[in-house]
Amino acid sequence: MSNILVFGHKSPDTDAVTSAISFAYLQNQLGKDVEPVALGEISEETQYALDFFNTKAPRIVTEADSNVEAVMLVDHNEPQQSLDNIDEFEILSVVDHHRIANFETAGPLYYRAEPVGCTNTIIFKIYKEYGIDVPKDIAGLMLSAIISDTLLFKSPTCTAEDERAAQELAEIAEVDLHAYGMKMLKAGTNVNSKSAQDILNGDAKSFEMGDKTVRIGQVNVVDVQELLQRKDELIELAEKNNVAEGYDLTLLLITNILESDTVGLVVGSGIETVEAAFNETVNDHQIKLPGVVSRKKQVVPPLTDAFEG
Amino acid sequence: MSNILVFGHKSPDTDAVTSAISFAYLQNQLGKDVEPVALGEISEETQYALDFFNTKAPRIVTEADSNVEAVMLVDHNEPQQSLDNIDEFEILSVVDHHRIANFETAGPLYYRAEPVGCTNTIIFKIYKEYGIDVPKDIAGLMLSAIISDTLLFKSPTCTAEDERAAQELAEIAEVDLHAYGMKMLKAGTNVNSKSAQDILNGDAKSFEMGDKTVRIGQVNVVDVQELLQRKDELIELAEKNNVAEGYDLTLLLITNILESDTVGLVVGSGIETVEAAFNETVNDHQIKLPGVVSRKKQVVPPLTDAFEG
Repeated sequence: MSNILVFGHKSPDTDAVTSAISFAYLQNQLGKDVEPVALGEISEETQYALDFFNTKAPRIVTEADSNVEAVMLVDHNEPQQSLDNIDEFEILSVVDHHRIANFETAGPLYYRAEPVGCTNTIIFKIYKEYGIDVPKDIAGLMLSAIISDTLLFKSPTCTAEDERAAQELAEIAEVDLHAYGMKMLKAGTNVNSKSAQDILNGDAKSFEMGDKTVRIGQVNVVDVQELLQRKDELIELAEKNNVAEGYDLTLLLITNILESDTVGLVVGSGIETVEAAFNETVNDHQIKLPGVVSRKKQVVPPLTDAFEG
Repeated sequence: MSNILVFGHKSPDTDAVTSAISFAYLQNQLGKDVEPVALGEISEETQYALDFFNTKAPRIVTEADSNVEAVMLVDHNEPQQSLDNIDEFEILSVVDHHRIANFETAGPLYYRAEPVGCTNTIIFKIYKEYGIDVPKDIAGLMLSAIISDTLLFKSPTCTAEDERAAQELAEIAEVDLHAYGMKMLKAGTNVNSKSAQDILNGDAKSFEMGDKTVRIGQVNVVDVQELLQRKDELIELAEKNNVAEGYDLTLLLITNILESDTVGLVVGSGIETVEAAFNETVNDHQIKLPGVVSRKKQVVPPLTDAFEG
């Protein structure tokens, strides 16, 4: 076991898990003994990518033990999305592509954020800056993260840099980018086998907005109506979660990855604020979010503005 | 006037002023219309460097007008060290080498921090990553910043990267690094001509530590005793400043750049905490800080720990 851990956010998606793996490999090449771990269960989409590229899933950790000396964060910086006892450890570095909030250190650190679609796009740049080759399987995992975060380049968070990186990584990984990408994304849309709790928390993150704690989850599907058949069950559970976890509001984004559209389920207090943020009405907990596919770019900023404005 | 401003921290030192200039030039080369400004008076040391390398001082700004569209921060991130109305503007990017605190954005941004001795060392790396040549005079200004921040490589904040960058920049600037460096540092130690207010605020920064606001200034000298002859005047003014500006504590670091040693003047509440932080007693507002030359590495972290621990 290494004394330095690297990990992505809780409720890890493919970028959170694979950026820990790719960043740990880079640090190992640079002579640092770093272990990638995951702060929660591996999703079906991520497992598909790990299997395809012959990589063992990292071990799952929620509290780090006291023999850990320091940590490196990838794909997140907000403490409520991180290790439960993150306050106890020195943060050596952060590589991220999200807003910065509630993040504070006592001393200087290495912090690299860029407004691109995927953390692995930045990590690929850092590999190049150090002149370190990306092994075939790690290239495949990094490619998987870019496909996942950008929904195969359809998300408004996707930049020309993400597309260029994905193309280069697909060549190293020796896969057909689009054929592999569609297969991997579809592997993540199998909601029938998932419990309501998994659907609500699978990819969910907590955000402090004004004085509210807002829980935003996202689930990718190929058929929104199919999932909406479980609407009552999801709403009932979200109400329980809000009370148990102290969320003021839960928003579940049900995103159709083929049509690049989203329906939101809204549960809790502040419904009017959600309506104002998106200029749409909420009917029986349901809100249409046409053209929305990106939580980070199309949901968090307008909601933050509405709650803080 | 450009619609994007770039600036370093208030009470600007040589790195704050010149990193705005070097980063603006880089952005201009990348096609962005960016203007460097300074958030306070130019110090004698900085003016020496600007004169030596034929560069006009940037204009001084404390509040940006409404036609400014966005800003870029260099050499700082904490809002209390920034533009008075920083909250009104979108922050496009940060390049910094300090701790991150009280910094928050609504959306993703470009953030580049590394634990090196000088912001210009990072900016020099970014020039290289983009393949952009550093003009002779800008190289001289960047070199001046590295010399200033590392006290000619004597500060514990200085890294091998800073030294390497300084050597390369000295070649581009066509100066003898050590001869030029000593002349520039000495130009900044002329405290006789300075008012007590200039000495206290010349390079001072405010830090939130626990629930206290701590004001820490630093002045470089070649003779500590000479400045201590003005101790009564400095203490009286610091007491007034504490009340007027709402500081709980003012700490003035008087650093002998030839002997790499510091004497601190402590004024305000929390004297015991300062004593605990450095394991030294405060006698008549005075504390010995042997071997201390770096506010960032040797003063802010132990003080933060003491106030928050």
